[in-house]
Amino acid sequence: MEYRIEKDSLGNVKVPKTALWGPQTQRSHENFKIGQQMPTAIIHNLLQIKKAAAIVNYQLGTQTKAKADLITQAIDRILTGDYQSEFPLVVFQTGSGTQTNMNVNEVIAHMAAQINPQISIHPNDDVNQSQSSNDTFPTAMMMAATMAIDKLMPTLQALIDSFDAKAHQFQTVVKIGRTHLQDATPITVGQEISGWRSALQHDLEYLQTNRATLLELPIGATAVGTGLNTPAGFDTAMVAQLSKQVGIDFKPAPNKFQGLANHTGITMVHGILKTLATDLIKIGNDIRFLASGPRAGYNEFNIPSNEPGSSIMPGKVNPTQVEALTMVCAQVIGHDTTINIANSQGNFEMNVYKPIIIYDFLDSSNLLTQAIHSFDVHLVQGLEINSDRMSELLNNSLMLVTALSPHIGYERSAKIAQHAQQAGLTLKQAALDNGVTEAEFHDWVNARAMTNIDQDHNN
Amino acid sequence: MEYRIEKDSLGNVKVPKTALWGPQTQRSHENFKIGQQMPTAIIHNLLQIKKAAAIVNYQLGTQTKAKADLITQAIDRILTGDYQSEFPLVVFQTGSGTQTNMNVNEVIAHMAAQINPQISIHPNDDVNQSQSSNDTFPTAMMMAATMAIDKLMPTLQALIDSFDAKAHQFQTVVKIGRTHLQDATPITVGQEISGWRSALQHDLEYLQTNRATLLELPIGATAVGTGLNTPAGFDTAMVAQLSKQVGIDFKPAPNKFQGLANHTGITMVHGILKTLATDLIKIGNDIRFLASGPRAGYNEFNIPSNEPGSSIMPGKVNPTQVEALTMVCAQVIGHDTTINIANSQGNFEMNVYKPIIIYDFLDSSNLLTQAIHSFDVHLVQGLEINSDRMSELLNNSLMLVTALSPHIGYERSAKIAQHAQQAGLTLKQAALDNGVTEAEFHDWVNARAMTNIDQDHNN
Amino acid sequence: MEYRIEKDSLGNVKVPKTALWGPQTQRSHENFKIGQQMPTAIIHNLLQIKKAAAIVNYQLGTQTKAKADLITQAIDRILTGDYQSEFPLVVFQTGSGTQTNMNVNEVIAHMAAQINPQISIHPNDDVNQSQSSNDTFPTAMMMAATMAIDKLMPTLQALIDSFDAKAHQFQTVVKIGRTHLQDATPITVGQEISGWRSALQHDLEYLQTNRATLLELPIGATAVGTGLNTPAGFDTAMVAQLSKQVGIDFKPAPNKFQGLANHTGITMVHGILKTLATDLIKIGNDIRFLASGPRAGYNEFNIPSNEPGSSIMPGKVNPTQVEALTMVCAQVIGHDTTINIANSQGNFEMNVYKPIIIYDFLDSSNLLTQAIHSFDVHLVQGLEINSDRMSELLNNSLMLVTALSPHIGYERSAKIAQHAQQAGLTLKQAALDNGVTEAEFHDWVNARAMTNIDQDHNN
Amino acid sequence: MEYRIEKDSLGNVKVPKTALWGPQTQRSHENFKIGQQMPTAIIHNLLQIKKAAAIVNYQLGTQTKAKADLITQAIDRILTGDYQSEFPLVVFQTGSGTQTNMNVNEVIAHMAAQINPQISIHPNDDVNQSQSSNDTFPTAMMMAATMAIDKLMPTLQALIDSFDAKAHQFQTVVKIGRTHLQDATPITVGQEISGWRSALQHDLEYLQTNRATLLELPIGATAVGTGLNTPAGFDTAMVAQLSKQVGIDFKPAPNKFQGLANHTGITMVHGILKTLATDLIKIGNDIRFLASGPRAGYNEFNIPSNEPGSSIMPGKVNPTQVEALTMVCAQVIGHDTTINIANSQGNFEMNVYKPIIIYDFLDSSNLLTQAIHSFDVHLVQGLEINSDRMSELLNNSLMLVTALSPHIGYERSAKIAQHAQQAGLTLKQAALDNGVTEAEFHDWVNARAMTNIDQDHNN
Repeated sequence: MEYRIEKDSLGNVKVPKTALWGPQTQRSHENFKIGQQMPTAIIHNLLQIKKAAAIVNYQLGTQTKAKADLITQAIDRILTGDYQSEFPLVVFQTGSGTQTNMNVNEVIAHMAAQINPQISIHPNDDVNQSQSSNDTFPTAMMMAATMAIDKLMPTLQALIDSFDAKAHQFQTVVKIGRTHLQDATPITVGQEISGWRSALQHDLEYLQTNRATLLELPIGATAVGTGLNTPAGFDTAMVAQLSKQVGIDFKPAPNKFQGLANHTGITMVHGILKTLATDLIKIGNDIRFLASGPRAGYNEFNIPSNEPGSSIMPGKVNPTQVEALTMVCAQVIGHDTTINIANSQGNFEMNVYKPIIIYDFLDSSNLLTQAIHSFDVHLVQGLEINSDRMSELLNNSLMLVTALSPHIGYERSAKIAQHAQQAGLTLKQAALDNGVTEAEFHDWVNARAMTNIDQDHNN
Repeated sequence: MEYRIEKDSLGNVKVPKTALWGPQTQRSHENFKIGQQMPTAIIHNLLQIKKAAAIVNYQLGTQTKAKADLITQAIDRILTGDYQSEFPLVVFQTGSGTQTNMNVNEVIAHMAAQINPQISIHPNDDVNQSQSSNDTFPTAMMMAATMAIDKLMPTLQALIDSFDAKAHQFQTVVKIGRTHLQDATPITVGQEISGWRSALQHDLEYLQTNRATLLELPIGATAVGTGLNTPAGFDTAMVAQLSKQVGIDFKPAPNKFQGLANHTGITMVHGILKTLATDLIKIGNDIRFLASGPRAGYNEFNIPSNEPGSSIMPGKVNPTQVEALTMVCAQVIGHDTTINIANSQGNFEMNVYKPIIIYDFLDSSNLLTQAIHSFDVHLVQGLEINSDRMSELLNNSLMLVTALSPHIGYERSAKIAQHAQQAGLTLKQAALDNGVTEAEFHDWVNARAMTNIDQDHNN
Repeated sequence: MEYRIEKDSLGNVKVPKTALWGPQTQRSHENFKIGQQMPTAIIHNLLQIKKAAAIVNYQLGTQTKAKADLITQAIDRILTGDYQSEFPLVVFQTGSGTQTNMNVNEVIAHMAAQINPQISIHPNDDVNQSQSSNDTFPTAMMMAATMAIDKLMPTLQALIDSFDAKAHQFQTVVKIGRTHLQDATPITVGQEISGWRSALQHDLEYLQTNRATLLELPIGATAVGTGLNTPAGFDTAMVAQLSKQVGIDFKPAPNKFQGLANHTGITMVHGILKTLATDLIKIGNDIRFLASGPRAGYNEFNIPSNEPGSSIMPGKVNPTQVEALTMVCAQVIGHDTTINIANSQGNFEMNVYKPIIIYDFLDSSNLLTQAIHSFDVHLVQGLEINSDRMSELLNNSLMLVTALSPHIGYERSAKIAQHAQQAGLTLKQAALDNGVTEAEFHDWVNARAMTNIDQDHNN
Repeated sequence: MEYRIEKDSLGNVKVPKTALWGPQTQRSHENFKIGQQMPTAIIHNLLQIKKAAAIVNYQLGTQTKAKADLITQAIDRILTGDYQSEFPLVVFQTGSGTQTNMNVNEVIAHMAAQINPQISIHPNDDVNQSQSSNDTFPTAMMMAATMAIDKLMPTLQALIDSFDAKAHQFQTVVKIGRTHLQDATPITVGQEISGWRSALQHDLEYLQTNRATLLELPIGATAVGTGLNTPAGFDTAMVAQLSKQVGIDFKPAPNKFQGLANHTGITMVHGILKTLATDLIKIGNDIRFLASGPRAGYNEFNIPSNEPGSSIMPGKVNPTQVEALTMVCAQVIGHDTTINIANSQGNFEMNVYKPIIIYDFLDSSNLLTQAIHSFDVHLVQGLEINSDRMSELLNNSLMLVTALSPHIGYERSAKIAQHAQQAGLTLKQAALDNGVTEAEFHDWVNARAMTNIDQDHNN
């Protein structure tokens, strides 16, 4: 590979000849050969911040029109082109994200030089003007986190809608309920699914209610939160400009010292993601157990057969979408631990775990979005039930004995149940053996009535 | 010990002669010799539920006035007396909390028999009427969680107020800022403390905003969520009665199937507690490092000397309150992992990790309440600063060189800083050596101005 | 309450008149009203350390015989008497455990004064001689951790033995295997149980292999690890004396600086406890699902009926021991997170999360010991199988079709399976419908042969 | 893109025309658009397993020489060529890894057809002969985990060696010790570093001792652990062949049922990785605090200046390598939570969280390897000390007063210390003010002697 020589305050650096980045990017690239690349969402939002800064700096008189226009033009070219390879730095770099901030500054400056070499654009003095890595990086974090949640929410809503449709479809299909994994009194399929939907509905509402905490941008804080080297009004003008650029109604962080040193909002909202993950594991487990079998399991549900389960044996459908989903959920819960540790480790005016905090947040949010969508489309929307099997299990069950009790008394009812259990009979057979008539049995033992479905006020 | 014989459906049980509990409590007591006792808050709230149920059952015609009155009287006696030893069961029992629900039912029935042996009160048929462990226990969980948060919030507010007072007290005291643990540009003590306060303010607001999710009581669900064996209107009447009894504005769970099978709300609110814990670790670490020394540390803060640090060496004050607080926070973050696992493991119509979920939630909330109060009273309220030391560090710092740059140019400024660093001089001395006059230096290098404290809009 | 006045370097302190503790205990008691009490195991081991120190100090000439004897006598009285109320301090105190170390010193000194007021025993100068909280507390941690593991290991061995017995009892009972929760090829009950036993056997061997790391006692390190103010040979003499006193073969920590600043060994061994917890959750879930039913679940296992599951319905046996066990496991996994955070937060010559580290370690180990024992005695030893049900599920299964294939070809076999699935027939019926004779079917479809049980080399 | 049509038991599938994969890979590719790709290490080890299986199947008579040779040839071509794009599947697929196993089978079969279209190689019947995804995937997991640890161990050893070298280099440089962050008695730099080295040495020994548990390969288990459809001796022959191929001394899993259903060994060894992570955070924090400053921090250490910390301010060196390392450690601790959850969730004969377990294990191990190497080379090897600063802090400290006490008594010593503290003097000045002579002070106050460095037996 061919190189050019660039210089920074530590001396000369060999940079690949055609790279748009400069010496600070190069040093980081060499010094940190560790793990995954910085998420694209951070790069994109830093570019948006640089663009807004050029515009606002010009508005507030801290930048010339020519320079501001050129920076804007350079950024637009990067945003619309294919320049991903110009941002080679990794997550596991300096904990302030400074090196990625400089990577963005350097690439913009070089791009500007390609567009118009007559106007000199300096990565620090011009592109980074009125900013510091210490405020641009956490601002990009908040923007990226908001956008990730904004993708997750409609996907989750769609899953809720699918469950809602299934709950209505199977609203009155009666089946055996189960507590402690033991047979219990009847419910309808619709009721059972409504419980899943309600859990997810709660999680969605938590996201909707608490999304506001992600909108607080610390831009304008610069190095330590005091706003040193920013023109008056820079913070509010930046927030307004960024809001306009990306179409989200951001607001200035109410306290910029906190904005640099704590990532409270991201930690809290990730707490909602982990709650969602726990609910999804529960729902996923229910579905895969209810679809277990086909012969030696619960076998109440049929899930779509997306892949061959067995080349010779029909009816074997592995719950692969659930498996992918629950693996995602385990990852999200682990990421929560990481983010908790990371957010606890700020010192003084700075938290230097920024890259891992946002990396794990975005990974959680994106994995959930993708897995929920896949689960919805490839499984939930095609979920069917075996109503014969449900009837068989229900009629086999002894739990309906509780419905006899008001009519023939506790003692005689218990005796019937014991007879059924010992002789391996259905409750009905045992009841008939003990003097209950068929008509009485049908009158008294009404599983549907036991579900209260016709008076159900749950939503 | 002397025993009496009681009988249940599995046969005879030897119960301590004077115990108010019955056979089901006794069986659990013998079968589960594992770990800690069920929290008192759960017992108390189950008693409140039993009292409300007696009243509501009478109102709705499913219980006689005589029985309802006697049950109420028995419960009031238990609530106002010293009967803790009558509730000997542990957290690690059946995962529905059934055994503790039965313990409460049995003790109430026996107490009723002591008050009026003429009226027979049956633990299941009367005390537990229109209820199931499956709905009373999670209802008690929600009530106890709400009450725990209601104790935490004013304690946290008090700490915020203390930080607010300190921020005002030291509003304009200028000190060195620190990022990456390296010297950075100046801030004021008030600004630094305002960042801590803001983080806690966010956490408090999360609790205030999201507390509503804990108010959803699943009472009326009975065994599987369908409300089998409850009179019409039982759920709303119970919620109204409980709200009246304990003075909190509860509401019926919008979906009772979810209310038994998922503990989404508790999992989510514990996510706020863990976020609070991460912020407190950060604040605690800042304080203990700023108070480190007295000679070989940062030594900017003086914390109250609550215990002898060293019998011979004055000035050695160990940050013991911070140590207790941060240990609490580590515990809370661990409890979050436990609750995440537990909430993910519901099956079908029931989650059988209820006792550990509420035990850890209450432990987290109570530990935070106690530790925050102790930290506030024994440390924060007595926090003082060494302003001389702050000035010394500030004046020693080379970071103020950035203030020279606009006046004498970047290059000369950097030269001054290098001279200071190499020769071990203060910036001022190095500047005077390089032709800056004392008057100029004082004019130009204004640390207070660099903090923007006089334009500070942070809150 | 009546008080006496005691004095320390910070001034006068009011101590309850009859308390054996002194001013430093009293200050901690007042300043830390947070959470649980310090575990008794720590108090006991500190008492052992103080006793060993008295003996060794006399041996090495740094204490008189009279004082050493009196201290020893005082400690023996405390160890054999009921003095728990003299140790009122909590876990959430100073992170070095200094206050508990001083509590022990003060109680010993007061007890010595009661025994022989003629000889003055000073808590610091005499009881704490050649020691520091900084080395006694972590030494007590290691001792307590070793003892806790030494209780856990035989309990775990007993459970392994119970599973071994059950594996032999049901060695050749053939049942359907399940992967992805879907019906799979046959295994025997003994094979299935052998997998559980093997997992636990691995965990036990990890404990046996790695227990050695807990034996490293940092006694002799004193304040920072250098052994300042200890006589030559104090560390090795102390370890020998402690080994003799408690009957465990301890060894001196190879590096005392690490012994105070890192709790690597405890963190690592707790990593084995959390691994054990994960295996127990898997086993517990298998058992409760295999015992699910009685009619609408897998119903392959019968577990002991320890408590009434339902007063009216026979056969409903809730898997309560599994529920308690898996709640314990969730707690242990959460404690692992806490210990990880705590061990990461040492600074310089000290880790000040010592009390929470040992509290959670002991809680995990004790909970596991109690829950494993309870699970073993109340469930595993009484585990029975429904072999009829197993046969029914096996014969119902279509997975045995794979055994036909070598004889009649893949295509015809698949056709038979499809016919069975569509018509709801057993495989045998479908085979007979398709020209296989009954004799052929019995010859070819041999579930037991498919398990390879007669060539099984697993252990 | 152009496609070809392939067929499986569910019907036709459009596969990219030039892809070497087949219909099952294609279905997974379309159904699982979630997250990261399956690690290359898993693909490579599956290829090794397929190669070993071809050889062993021929040896045991279950495969022809021609087919075995062709499969081997195809695999060798894949292993030595650039075929990464032929393995497009993700981690979040079916939890058994079946789809990746089939991906490997299909690519091998297509490659064989390219090499010799005369011999028909079937992905299932030939490439997968005597195997199941259920045993090949966990076998590949164990192989990949072993190899990852085998890369980590020498890297960790190198870091230990670097710390050892630094400990010797600064063996006798005396500095102030710190406990509770407060000034304490002296130690040497070498002693302090030896504590770090000792922690890492413990972690390395845990890996060495427990690596054996990763060597247990469940190959030969096939679908449920019984070894159905494998020739006699297949398991041991496979383990021998794999050991030969990759040069690691594997052994057959002692219990194959456990090998499919539990990932105990990986969970346990990851418990060592998380322990290592906690120790590294502690060490990293010590280094960055000791290097804090340059003027307003501890400033005892100088770390290499790898990137410009500030363009204007000399001496500002951000501890970026520590920041990357501690972010890695936070990630590893989070991954431990994920793996704990995943390993707890096996059901019956299978754990279907295999891909996430191995993905997180490999990510942890690789991140630690890369970050430890980077930290070693870019920071530790270049670590230097400010011995003047250390002397200054030591001489400034009042902790040396303890050395006066044996000579002039406790009371007079305390008075000197108080005088020093109140008047802001060094201990020496205060002592001289109180009648100690300079000669006496130098004789008595000997910080080096207080470190016991000359009798130090720590390693």
